[in-house]
Amino acid sequence: MATTALLVLDLVGTFAFALNGALTALRTTRLDIVGVVTLGMITALGGGTIRDVFLDSLPPATFVDWRYLAVAAGGGLIAFVAGPYLERLNGTINVLDAAGLSLFAVTGALKALDLGFGPAQAVIVGTITGVGGGTLRDVLIRQVPSVLTSGLYAVPALVGATAVVVADLLGTRGPVASISAAALCCTIRMVGVHFDVHAPFPPVRTRRERE
Amino acid sequence: MATTALLVLDLVGTFAFALNGALTALRTTRLDIVGVVTLGMITALGGGTIRDVFLDSLPPATFVDWRYLAVAAGGGLIAFVAGPYLERLNGTINVLDAAGLSLFAVTGALKALDLGFGPAQAVIVGTITGVGGGTLRDVLIRQVPSVLTSGLYAVPALVGATAVVVADLLGTRGPVASISAAALCCTIRMVGVHFDVHAPFPPVRTRRERE
Amino acid sequence: MATTALLVLDLVGTFAFALNGALTALRTTRLDIVGVVTLGMITALGGGTIRDVFLDSLPPATFVDWRYLAVAAGGGLIAFVAGPYLERLNGTINVLDAAGLSLFAVTGALKALDLGFGPAQAVIVGTITGVGGGTLRDVLIRQVPSVLTSGLYAVPALVGATAVVVADLLGTRGPVASISAAALCCTIRMVGVHFDVHAPFPPVRTRRERE
Repeated sequence: MATTALLVLDLVGTFAFALNGALTALRTTRLDIVGVVTLGMITALGGGTIRDVFLDSLPPATFVDWRYLAVAAGGGLIAFVAGPYLERLNGTINVLDAAGLSLFAVTGALKALDLGFGPAQAVIVGTITGVGGGTLRDVLIRQVPSVLTSGLYAVPALVGATAVVVADLLGTRGPVASISAAALCCTIRMVGVHFDVHAPFPPVRTRRERE
Repeated sequence: MATTALLVLDLVGTFAFALNGALTALRTTRLDIVGVVTLGMITALGGGTIRDVFLDSLPPATFVDWRYLAVAAGGGLIAFVAGPYLERLNGTINVLDAAGLSLFAVTGALKALDLGFGPAQAVIVGTITGVGGGTLRDVLIRQVPSVLTSGLYAVPALVGATAVVVADLLGTRGPVASISAAALCCTIRMVGVHFDVHAPFPPVRTRRERE
Repeated sequence: MATTALLVLDLVGTFAFALNGALTALRTTRLDIVGVVTLGMITALGGGTIRDVFLDSLPPATFVDWRYLAVAAGGGLIAFVAGPYLERLNGTINVLDAAGLSLFAVTGALKALDLGFGPAQAVIVGTITGVGGGTLRDVLIRQVPSVLTSGLYAVPALVGATAVVVADLLGTRGPVASISAAALCCTIRMVGVHFDVHAPFPPVRTRRERE
């Protein structure tokens, strides 16, 4: 896959996550401009930073490359200024979040493969890249991370990362496989949001709660 | 100490922590299968990951070696499926947790010594390895980490790590010293749980609260 | 700037943050001696640890160098023993915190420049070094981090780090520039505390809340 295409996908994901992170922050806690932009940047860059710690690829690419920093800060600032208008576009926000999740899961897994890690490691690191930034955001604003509670959040990332790793093992790696894997992840996520699908809950506990 | 023995101890600790972390998650928040297994894995692998950041031993051993990943995921899955039955065995869970704490404190300190760090660093890193995973778990499910509040949690880890470092300085390092240090840590922890022992509280504050 | 002078500034900042972190812990949650000292150490050493992850300068200097460990532990212990007396000196504590913030922002940015990072990276890493420890502390005791909510906390760190980077670009780097940048940061922080200044809040949200 052309490096430029990978970079563009990564930057689109960064922007989507910065916007989404800053908007989530605006909804839950009263923060000033520094807080909103900081949370946008942490959401956008956190997953890639954790990825690079796991892959021993420090200093993190998201920190060294000014384009990531600029796109993340820009997304946070736009959310700060235009927040009230964007909140009405709830659907758009969800799509952006699903796009960020998908792109990061795919690019994270590809980076692991490029650095010579095994398939299991690539799947795990892709998933962590996808869900990491949002998890840091939720910890900072004192929410239980959506990766733990919200229906189908980690699962689509896991599926997307697995798809791109399988494509690599089959020797069909390339832009088509990457975009397909991201689209698959994005679709599962959006179906999950739309129909409020959840992964299975623990057996007996659920029964108790129904009583 | 034979590498195999060290690995076995480490894997037993990983399994004990994955089981314990997933069960703690089941008790405090309503999580689906992804959330339960994720928290089990974070509890089991988090301490070793932080250890490897401090020791500049990236990528983390817990991430590169599939055995750690498999044992941690297995522990989380077992807790998910058999959670309600295991909760009745509260004593067993406490023993497993104490075992994980002890084994990680000892293996963490030994890894620091092997990599040429000083005794103070080995003691600190052993303690962090023991308490790190549970601390990450508690942050994610919004509990004040038990290392900060619960009587004797960090102290036994500190004692166990110190014992193994002293044994190393005295030239008596080996399986016997390691097992003894772990047993010492485990005993202190279990005595603390049983008699509800706490480290000293701040002087005046306690008096105020009693009034 | 002489290495010794940099080290002394860094250790003063470490002590100030350990004292402040432990006192904050005493105020908000009931912790025993292990919890108080641990939180003091995390507040004092956390920012430098995150800095060294970003700069790929692992193992962290704060962990390898016993002087940081000793000063941080000492500050936490003093706060534990003398906490009730120190709390009356609220002004002193605020000054110590501002001093820690300023010194870490400046020394963090200088370390990034020394390691060959660009100006934007140096400013960001200086700011993270200043606010990182307090953020970890707040997450552990379940507060929304003051960097997100409290008026002018990240801004002075950003200004101090920027000042020292600009001085470096102008070729006037040295003890005078460093102390001036730290003093500038410290002054802005203290003015912010005194007059309760905040960075701007989001536009419409504020209006809604006034209604």
